Amino acid sequence: MSKPKGQGYDQRLWGGRFASGPSEDTLAFTTSIGIDWRLWRADIEASIAHAQMLGEQNIISKPESSTLIQGLREVAKDFEEQMSKGQWPFPPHAEDVHSVIELRLRDKVGAVAGKLHTARSRNDQVVTAFRLTLLGECKALREEVRDLQRVLLQRAEAELETWLPGLTHIQHAQPVSLAHHLLAYFWMLDRDHSRFTDWDQSTRVNPLGSAALAGTSFPIDRQSTSRALGFHRPSENSLDAVADRDFAIEFVSNLSLVALHLSRLAEELTYWSAPEFGFVELHDEVTTGSSIMPQKKNPDVAELIRGRTGRALGAWIQLATMMKALPLAYNRDQQEDKEPVFYALDSVRASLRLSSRMVQDADFKRDRMAKALLGDFSNATDLADSLAKQGLPFREAHEVAGHVVRWCLENKRALETLTLGELQGLDPRFDEATRQALQHDQVARARTSEGGTAPQAVRVQIEKAQAALKTNSP
Amino acid sequence: MSKPKGQGYDQRLWGGRFASGPSEDTLAFTTSIGIDWRLWRADIEASIAHAQMLGEQNIISKPESSTLIQGLREVAKDFEEQMSKGQWPFPPHAEDVHSVIELRLRDKVGAVAGKLHTARSRNDQVVTAFRLTLLGECKALREEVRDLQRVLLQRAEAELETWLPGLTHIQHAQPVSLAHHLLAYFWMLDRDHSRFTDWDQSTRVNPLGSAALAGTSFPIDRQSTSRALGFHRPSENSLDAVADRDFAIEFVSNLSLVALHLSRLAEELTYWSAPEFGFVELHDEVTTGSSIMPQKKNPDVAELIRGRTGRALGAWIQLATMMKALPLAYNRDQQEDKEPVFYALDSVRASLRLSSRMVQDADFKRDRMAKALLGDFSNATDLADSLAKQGLPFREAHEVAGHVVRWCLENKRALETLTLGELQGLDPRFDEATRQALQHDQVARARTSEGGTAPQAVRVQIEKAQAALKTNSP
Amino acid sequence: MSKPKGQGYDQRLWGGRFASGPSEDTLAFTTSIGIDWRLWRADIEASIAHAQMLGEQNIISKPESSTLIQGLREVAKDFEEQMSKGQWPFPPHAEDVHSVIELRLRDKVGAVAGKLHTARSRNDQVVTAFRLTLLGECKALREEVRDLQRVLLQRAEAELETWLPGLTHIQHAQPVSLAHHLLAYFWMLDRDHSRFTDWDQSTRVNPLGSAALAGTSFPIDRQSTSRALGFHRPSENSLDAVADRDFAIEFVSNLSLVALHLSRLAEELTYWSAPEFGFVELHDEVTTGSSIMPQKKNPDVAELIRGRTGRALGAWIQLATMMKALPLAYNRDQQEDKEPVFYALDSVRASLRLSSRMVQDADFKRDRMAKALLGDFSNATDLADSLAKQGLPFREAHEVAGHVVRWCLENKRALETLTLGELQGLDPRFDEATRQALQHDQVARARTSEGGTAPQAVRVQIEKAQAALKTNSP
Amino acid sequence: MSKPKGQGYDQRLWGGRFASGPSEDTLAFTTSIGIDWRLWRADIEASIAHAQMLGEQNIISKPESSTLIQGLREVAKDFEEQMSKGQWPFPPHAEDVHSVIELRLRDKVGAVAGKLHTARSRNDQVVTAFRLTLLGECKALREEVRDLQRVLLQRAEAELETWLPGLTHIQHAQPVSLAHHLLAYFWMLDRDHSRFTDWDQSTRVNPLGSAALAGTSFPIDRQSTSRALGFHRPSENSLDAVADRDFAIEFVSNLSLVALHLSRLAEELTYWSAPEFGFVELHDEVTTGSSIMPQKKNPDVAELIRGRTGRALGAWIQLATMMKALPLAYNRDQQEDKEPVFYALDSVRASLRLSSRMVQDADFKRDRMAKALLGDFSNATDLADSLAKQGLPFREAHEVAGHVVRWCLENKRALETLTLGELQGLDPRFDEATRQALQHDQVARARTSEGGTAPQAVRVQIEKAQAALKTNSP
Repeated sequence: MSKPKGQGYDQRLWGGRFASGPSEDTLAFTTSIGIDWRLWRADIEASIAHAQMLGEQNIISKPESSTLIQGLREVAKDFEEQMSKGQWPFPPHAEDVHSVIELRLRDKVGAVAGKLHTARSRNDQVVTAFRLTLLGECKALREEVRDLQRVLLQRAEAELETWLPGLTHIQHAQPVSLAHHLLAYFWMLDRDHSRFTDWDQSTRVNPLGSAALAGTSFPIDRQSTSRALGFHRPSENSLDAVADRDFAIEFVSNLSLVALHLSRLAEELTYWSAPEFGFVELHDEVTTGSSIMPQKKNPDVAELIRGRTGRALGAWIQLATMMKALPLAYNRDQQEDKEPVFYALDSVRASLRLSSRMVQDADFKRDRMAKALLGDFSNATDLADSLAKQGLPFREAHEVAGHVVRWCLENKRALETLTLGELQGLDPRFDEATRQALQHDQVARARTSEGGTAPQAVRVQIEKAQAALKTNSP
Repeated sequence: MSKPKGQGYDQRLWGGRFASGPSEDTLAFTTSIGIDWRLWRADIEASIAHAQMLGEQNIISKPESSTLIQGLREVAKDFEEQMSKGQWPFPPHAEDVHSVIELRLRDKVGAVAGKLHTARSRNDQVVTAFRLTLLGECKALREEVRDLQRVLLQRAEAELETWLPGLTHIQHAQPVSLAHHLLAYFWMLDRDHSRFTDWDQSTRVNPLGSAALAGTSFPIDRQSTSRALGFHRPSENSLDAVADRDFAIEFVSNLSLVALHLSRLAEELTYWSAPEFGFVELHDEVTTGSSIMPQKKNPDVAELIRGRTGRALGAWIQLATMMKALPLAYNRDQQEDKEPVFYALDSVRASLRLSSRMVQDADFKRDRMAKALLGDFSNATDLADSLAKQGLPFREAHEVAGHVVRWCLENKRALETLTLGELQGLDPRFDEATRQALQHDQVARARTSEGGTAPQAVRVQIEKAQAALKTNSP
Repeated sequence: MSKPKGQGYDQRLWGGRFASGPSEDTLAFTTSIGIDWRLWRADIEASIAHAQMLGEQNIISKPESSTLIQGLREVAKDFEEQMSKGQWPFPPHAEDVHSVIELRLRDKVGAVAGKLHTARSRNDQVVTAFRLTLLGECKALREEVRDLQRVLLQRAEAELETWLPGLTHIQHAQPVSLAHHLLAYFWMLDRDHSRFTDWDQSTRVNPLGSAALAGTSFPIDRQSTSRALGFHRPSENSLDAVADRDFAIEFVSNLSLVALHLSRLAEELTYWSAPEFGFVELHDEVTTGSSIMPQKKNPDVAELIRGRTGRALGAWIQLATMMKALPLAYNRDQQEDKEPVFYALDSVRASLRLSSRMVQDADFKRDRMAKALLGDFSNATDLADSLAKQGLPFREAHEVAGHVVRWCLENKRALETLTLGELQGLDPRFDEATRQALQHDQVARARTSEGGTAPQAVRVQIEKAQAALKTNSP
Repeated sequence: MSKPKGQGYDQRLWGGRFASGPSEDTLAFTTSIGIDWRLWRADIEASIAHAQMLGEQNIISKPESSTLIQGLREVAKDFEEQMSKGQWPFPPHAEDVHSVIELRLRDKVGAVAGKLHTARSRNDQVVTAFRLTLLGECKALREEVRDLQRVLLQRAEAELETWLPGLTHIQHAQPVSLAHHLLAYFWMLDRDHSRFTDWDQSTRVNPLGSAALAGTSFPIDRQSTSRALGFHRPSENSLDAVADRDFAIEFVSNLSLVALHLSRLAEELTYWSAPEFGFVELHDEVTTGSSIMPQKKNPDVAELIRGRTGRALGAWIQLATMMKALPLAYNRDQQEDKEPVFYALDSVRASLRLSSRMVQDADFKRDRMAKALLGDFSNATDLADSLAKQGLPFREAHEVAGHVVRWCLENKRALETLTLGELQGLDPRFDEATRQALQHDQVARARTSEGGTAPQAVRVQIEKAQAALKTNSP
């Protein structure tokens, strides 16, 4: 493919001293435009704030400042228009998005464009635009988290008395309500949301004005750019400001936890879709068929969500490996910060959206869930508890319960079907209350402790969930 | 080795239904006492809070409650005494620390010990003790972070006018002060401290009372145990409470960032120790000699800190891999949560401590730093800036500066040694102010912007650092 | 704990130039004896080979050589005796295992011990002992792999006509035999075995004689030590020899694949143990009970194997992170090479052993497997195939099959129970051969292609497996 | 953007039973065409081999077989033509590359296209095409490895007597030749090459004919397709064949080791470019300038190579996470196998190519290297050795040497400049041979042991390297 003329690298900003320019291979190796175009809007916003401040501080003249701001706004408008027409404004051979914007600005306003770089370096410029971009992405991501929480809550509200086996070790442990089960995911996601909120707050530190690494001798006002861009404060140390990528690593760490949560949900929906469980039929929209077996309904979307967990984990490793043992301040290695973040971000966002879809449209099979409980001995604990409540020492109560379970297993009987007479034949201390306590719904209804599975406890939980959803600040 | 008699597994708590017990191999494979003994104090504290609450709620009698509490305190005292004598109270074949404590308690108080397990399961018990233990460890860790911050700050205070080359791409970029350089690490660690503070707050959620997975039918008061143990509130969902290990993963993620920061510091101290740099001589205490080259002073501690970065990263991967696609609620896989956390924690704590030692006792070589700046052209930016400040367009100023640099390179001259005459010979717009601006200390002193390297800016930074150190809550 | 007197560090080998020795903290931080004691036997073997060669080459005298060799053998014998009595020969404050051995040797033979270090450095010594140790461990590991393969093969031999649902997407796809299913794991492990064989071959390169990093001026014979120690050849480049840890990373990569394979087997055994599947009852020896639910039989060992997958993955990351961007030649970072390798190794070895136990004693439930196939439509492909074999275009055959399946679903009928009349009512092209082809065992028996699930194909597969087991070289 | 009409998903191959098709979101989530288009050539080759075999076995008629083969060849030709014109033949909404090819084939040959899917499933088809594609990529990759080896060897050949400090702990240890240093990387890469050769051999196992998971009832000949496609043999077990991704993980593990090796080289070139070392000036083609500091020549390419190490590591984690605990046989998760492999592959290939460029054009500064040795005491070992060779016990010789070094340090003298008289004043056992042995070139020239740094040893090493380059099989 022939190279577009007059673009990007032949006007390379650093030009000068070098006898020969970098080779095509080098350009392909070093360009970041394929990734960092996503920073274009933030870069322009930060440049506008910078130009505004330069004018206010009389570092450049007021008219120069106005010219730059106007020019930058036009560049932004051009980009939007081009993209709305399906044109791609970022030439693939450009050095990076910042060069593209700078060259465009020069086309608009001429040599004064060069003044925008006063008291600023690529080092602080890039990391400012990256922080701003992620802050925006994080906001959208948090909304996706909230969406899935809402869907879970909404589905839960109708399933307070839908009983299914609660598992430990993938063995039936105790009956729980489907509402309670779905809400477990609600709270995982609520922690995720909180983590992103914390992240947002700690990321609002403004590197702009740190220049290359040491600050600048121009009388800049970093409070001004901080205010304009929504940062809480300027960074405290210019070396650290251009060298720091904690915010990127922490962001991907948070994404990884979301991915892990979604992998658990996806695992459950996958197994629940298996004929052995049959607890759910997923909607046609999130399943696919097999080319050779027309009867199968494969939970592909759930499987892909599960299979993509490693994207976030791998991205975290990629970032951490990159930062290991890097000396201060900026090194070109750090250009590698954006790709893994966007990769993990896009994957997790899509997984959140599709998880919402899956849960929203899932056809839960209440009858299969109820049937799964019959004769499963997940009521055995309550047999022991009923004796313990009569004052029997805990361990002795357990032994009696174990004895009854063994009798049932030998006689192929379900615990919940024993008559009062049969129960008392096994141990005279059993009474009608014991018999009733063994019905699976009673087992669940009895668990009224705070956070427990009884409907009355789940109702309180739902209220807390509703309150949590309203906590959307900042 | 012969197996100790009468210990642990022959009294296994779950006994009962099984024809044959687990084999020795299985016991060795499944025991966690080698790791979870570290939970002993937290487990006893949580049991005391639980026993207290059971009594208050009349789930057990007041005297039973008192007996249990008294017994638990005695168990704790016994452990302390044994350990102070160098005896190991945790038999290597025991199932886990919780069994050991339960058996000890039974020895103390007899059958009533069994009542402690009322309205509680191993599932909520374990995770409660783990959270409490990590909350304690985190507090100690934050103190180690603060120690290193204090050392950095203290060393910085004496080096405001010690100039060394600030690097980008490991090339001289601009002179910075050693104070400024050391403080860059101060702020990295300050973010670490904040992250652990956030983590502490979000981890103070009490799983106790979630029982096996579904809550309990006993009228427990989870607010009471929460208050007693320093938790902010009970967990909202019992399934989530026993299934969640976010706090462990997030803790190791935070540790990883510390490890990465220390790896950068270690890298710098390692290279600064090399004869080519010679910016520092590390103390004998943190270096070692070579068996075959008596003249070498190897920065082994710095190298080991750098080399151990991967411990935290690996631990994070270990945890995340473990949690991937686990269905609700508790699975035995989750027993694997403690080992990687403690491994990363111990490694990072020791690395923090040794980093403090290294920095505290480092002999910084001011003369070598100063010498490194001579003729390094890290003042070239200021040559351009001096013209830009006269109103020359930024790009043109750069071109002129580049021209001067080339002249100096060709004539083997240092920029800072040019006379006014020479400067004006190269470009008549240069003046005495230009010439003075080219002295390296002036280059640094001029960078007075907020967060910049000029002494007056660093003094403000130091005040902020002092204030940050006082922020030790919660 | 008070420090043992007269041990290790106060006789530190590098002593000398340093005013103060390293502090206790530093010693605790830098010592590797807690890990590298496992190299003791290999270190002594390599020293014997080195001493032998030094004598042969007249670098030291023959009597000196004999004295050293005799002394080293006695040290080895002492270690064995001490350990057989339960005494620990490696003082916890020693620098490393090599120092311990050297000091012991000096106790045995006096000052001549110092001659052992002629033409050798700690750098080549350590990595030689590490390679030799891993080569030995690898041999034992390969035997464990073979053991599990043998168990799988043995169990498979009896299950050629035990049919169960073969799954894709955790949905029933086609019936397969249990033999075929178990053998899938046989071949995964066979690849593992091959990888370790390749690894063994490529690891047999001898670093000894590379000295610190540049080789030595003594007239050593590296072919001699290579032969004595079982290496194929001396390393080609002394810098690379002391700097290389590829063999450690590759070893852990291979271990990771074993761990992943075992995680898949463990996952299946865990789900097969669930009441919903009920395909297996694991032996009491590899399961545990619940303290509160006496009826549960938890597949703890399988869960732990699955949960420990991340140990190997984390160890790989730890090693790779350590090696990233290390300059030549040896850096102290590389001391961190042993711990992750042994951690992953021990974990995978134990998991292999327990997997063998689980499979050996598993009670496969043939009736539950057979029952799971009824009405599962995993024979639908064969309905389509029977038409395709009559010449119907593939896609059309599929459509017809899909139509029949839908009819069955609507009428709650199992495909295999349709009469010939019913079949022909749905499509006249069906015949008695079609009807017979729909019986699940026929579906499986028809898959006679090489590597397919038909008993005759599996019998061929078993012969190949038997042949593979005999391939145990090198 | 509006969706292209009549393409891909509205003709979805599995169609049929589903009331509503998958949604746009689902399609975007599940499509793999953006990645797996790279399999197109291998997929067509495998289909041709399959069609050929189906004809030979009379499973389809000979004319049908010919029609399919002809059609497939035309599809391949069309793709090539389109791409040579810059047209993209793979619609972004297509399900995957296999669907695109199948639909194209149908356009060419009509309904008979459906017969290609006889005795084959997407499951075995995909993994066959993936193996073939990687086998081809591996071949190209090995060539890139060889290229870099050749460059290193070529540069080494001219530098046998260029001395520079050999480092341990980043401290001067002993002088080595630049040739020796460059060749260290040669051997790392030679191991990489061997690993890819082993990988190639073990990957030549043919999954085709395993069908969905259980084999097929058609009388296929898997030996035939194996021969046609260059596989050594058919896979032994159909379940394993479609479930296995070992080859992908192992491939990325091998790539990771290459990346780690390149990171070490890049680290060295980066530091050697720093003014403190000054051992190399990298070519303008692989460096870039700074926008604000015209004098800097930043080793960006080296930094990016180092910074991209984590790409391979992250990809490995991504794959391993994906495979963890997946039950047999195929799960949709496994679609995630290609992206990380190609990501790591492309990154490592480009890094290899640019590393070759960097080394090829590097301007090594022999004078700076020589100067760095002066007075660095890296000859101290030889002082000790010269005494040891006179029969002095090793430890005593070291003490004497340490004493002389201390004297030199105190008197600011370089060891190599001491006169014979001065030496003998310090210890009468020193003689003229000692004095000569202290010259740095003599120190290096003396290290004639196999693999050592002496020119005569390096010459032998170069011969071995030349021989290794000729070993290019298979």
